[in-house]
Amino acid sequence: MRNRVYIDNIFRHEIADGTEVTLKGWLYNKRSSGKLVFLLLRDGTGTIQCTVYKPTVGDDMFGVADKIAQESSFTITGNIHKDERAPGGYEIQVSRVELIHQAVDYPITPKEHGPEFLMDNRHLWLRSKNQHAIMRIRHTVIKAIRDFFDGRGFTLVDTPIFTPAACEGTTTLFETEYFDSKAYLAQSGQLYAEAGAMALGKVYCFGPTFRAEKSKTRRHLTEFWMVEPEVAFNDLYDNMELAEDFLEYIVQTVLRERAQELNILERDTSKLANVKAPFPRVHYEEAVKIIRESGLPFESGNDFGAPDEAAISAKYDRPVIVHHYPAAVKAFYMKRDPNEPDKALAMDILAPEGYGEIVGGSQREDDYDTLLQRIKEHDLPPEAFDWYLDLRRYGSVPHAGFGLGVERTVTWICGIQHLREAIPFPRMIHRLKP
Amino acid sequence: MRNRVYIDNIFRHEIADGTEVTLKGWLYNKRSSGKLVFLLLRDGTGTIQCTVYKPTVGDDMFGVADKIAQESSFTITGNIHKDERAPGGYEIQVSRVELIHQAVDYPITPKEHGPEFLMDNRHLWLRSKNQHAIMRIRHTVIKAIRDFFDGRGFTLVDTPIFTPAACEGTTTLFETEYFDSKAYLAQSGQLYAEAGAMALGKVYCFGPTFRAEKSKTRRHLTEFWMVEPEVAFNDLYDNMELAEDFLEYIVQTVLRERAQELNILERDTSKLANVKAPFPRVHYEEAVKIIRESGLPFESGNDFGAPDEAAISAKYDRPVIVHHYPAAVKAFYMKRDPNEPDKALAMDILAPEGYGEIVGGSQREDDYDTLLQRIKEHDLPPEAFDWYLDLRRYGSVPHAGFGLGVERTVTWICGIQHLREAIPFPRMIHRLKP
Repeated sequence: MRNRVYIDNIFRHEIADGTEVTLKGWLYNKRSSGKLVFLLLRDGTGTIQCTVYKPTVGDDMFGVADKIAQESSFTITGNIHKDERAPGGYEIQVSRVELIHQAVDYPITPKEHGPEFLMDNRHLWLRSKNQHAIMRIRHTVIKAIRDFFDGRGFTLVDTPIFTPAACEGTTTLFETEYFDSKAYLAQSGQLYAEAGAMALGKVYCFGPTFRAEKSKTRRHLTEFWMVEPEVAFNDLYDNMELAEDFLEYIVQTVLRERAQELNILERDTSKLANVKAPFPRVHYEEAVKIIRESGLPFESGNDFGAPDEAAISAKYDRPVIVHHYPAAVKAFYMKRDPNEPDKALAMDILAPEGYGEIVGGSQREDDYDTLLQRIKEHDLPPEAFDWYLDLRRYGSVPHAGFGLGVERTVTWICGIQHLREAIPFPRMIHRLKP
Repeated sequence: MRNRVYIDNIFRHEIADGTEVTLKGWLYNKRSSGKLVFLLLRDGTGTIQCTVYKPTVGDDMFGVADKIAQESSFTITGNIHKDERAPGGYEIQVSRVELIHQAVDYPITPKEHGPEFLMDNRHLWLRSKNQHAIMRIRHTVIKAIRDFFDGRGFTLVDTPIFTPAACEGTTTLFETEYFDSKAYLAQSGQLYAEAGAMALGKVYCFGPTFRAEKSKTRRHLTEFWMVEPEVAFNDLYDNMELAEDFLEYIVQTVLRERAQELNILERDTSKLANVKAPFPRVHYEEAVKIIRESGLPFESGNDFGAPDEAAISAKYDRPVIVHHYPAAVKAFYMKRDPNEPDKALAMDILAPEGYGEIVGGSQREDDYDTLLQRIKEHDLPPEAFDWYLDLRRYGSVPHAGFGLGVERTVTWICGIQHLREAIPFPRMIHRLKP
């Protein structure tokens, strides 16, 4: 780290024009023109044009520069030169080039490659400009998530990945031998976050979650990151308020801090600028009407499919909250509305532009007897929920929370088509490598 | 969330003395004295004394207050009253008490309980004062970790949990069916972080990692959180500098922001105040001398055991860096020192006060042929490392990184005895519940 200069130090005007610097990185691209070679150097923080002029560096070093191949590593010494025409506003006038390691036949060339090829070479594909932009936006989304909750006094409660019982049926659970017994990889940290909320009031868990999804859609990963806040004494409406403030914060932070990356991805940011609370709130039965008015057949009582969600969100210019889903299509732990006993105090948030559900949450059932009855109705083993029932045995309180999927959020904000680009090393039914 | 008041709003002087507020929470403790009941209310952000005076609230409500049992949930309305004698400097002069839910026979009483009982009731044990302190310190450690790297321009690269090959032998790996094949839960994100560093220059991964540890020591969990930075163009010495600045930052942040929690835990903070860079650096052979001088038998060439580490760290008033371990006891991917070919460019940091290794890192082998040879020497399947070898095929550069275990760091900073208290829901060989 000693005195190292990175390209973003130059772009952020932290080093005076004319200063001699040494940069280390990889060749992103190159063009030659007579006595000039233009090396596009990337170092992970940015890409800068390095101009190598034959009379300055001499024939030998010019020969080295001229032969550097794509993604080879090299060191450049030269003077920073402000030049409005150069990308980023600066270039390096090179006095010295040293090759570190020549890359022979780098597999990803500027030509088009198929998605399977790119996914097989994900470890290299991450070096490309668009993937950099997505990874930096992902970074900022995750930082915004944590900053939002940390700034509001939430305590992080990391929930376990290994869980003892197959609480919600085993069909989408990954199982592992756990010494002399079996463990299942958590699909959600919620039940544990509820214990955290009873202890610390306002908590969130944030980690990878696992679903053995056999579906091969562009909206499914077997391993994805999810953040789940849980707040004691919050009801459904507090939960909606928290979620909309949260989404606004994430999107506005990315717009402010990642304008350049959104530009690289050619994202229409006008659609994101609208993401401000309050969001429209639509009762399930009203949502059913919207779906039918759009011309789709829909039977009330069912859960929404992707086309139904698209029909609902098409009506609004920002995310929309759908609430009061039929209890029958929702999880056992959701509290029902005493005024509409067939409806759960549940809410989902649908992203605009057809990106579908990105938040799902509810007020939780806080009555011991009712919860026990629901567990039995769902054919779940009550003994596996002993500790969870304890939260209703000892000082039960109303509480609510939700989950937000990181990759779905990143995919939407980036305006890309497939979740697999929203995580560094995606895992899907047919994808476990690299 | 609407207009809710939390106890820490009062303690942070955000609400004027005399203001009427409503607080919601649980009963931490209670004492009575004639016409007075003192309710110690906890709401997750703090604990405040609520004074209920019979003539003020009337007989019925006084009766309610007097009967509230430990960990019952209730609502208090009353006026904030500044009182130097009260814990936190404030109390509530109660005008109204409403019981929400009475907890009958809460299992964790102020008497001593054995560790197994407390671990069985971990979901409730988290409500106690010391566990709150540890969880808040853990929160601050994790935030400091992220702030440190984010502030230095690192990009977060979440590495996969599901990995295709049993890269380092299967004895400590958890295996799961992955559709028609098998997957192993990652013990480290390092190899993937290296790919990230070649793409983004400076990266870190941070997530849960898994080891099927059969050992039942107080220093082992099967599931623990680890942060692993990886930096292109860093050598062993850059790596040491980064690690010592990092540890200083974490410890000094906790000292500044969690003084109250360290006090609850009765931590001797003078030992932590010393944690400032630079740390002493000890070559492996010098460390061997120190061990022998302490009276322990030790054969040069071996790895250190816990007593050996304790003997080394006892000589210093802050963490100590041991470097140049024998290559034979270290992982295949570590680069060897050309001047001492039997030594790896590895370094560990040992925490003071006998807390042992908390950081392990190295400069990585960056030469394709050498790395391939090491893979073969370790009887590892080269085809599983094809993508990893690609990082040395295309623009290889010197690079280095390290891993820091969160629970070991939290255990040390808190001055507690066992890792199981440093994570909300610990997982060990005989512990998969709650």
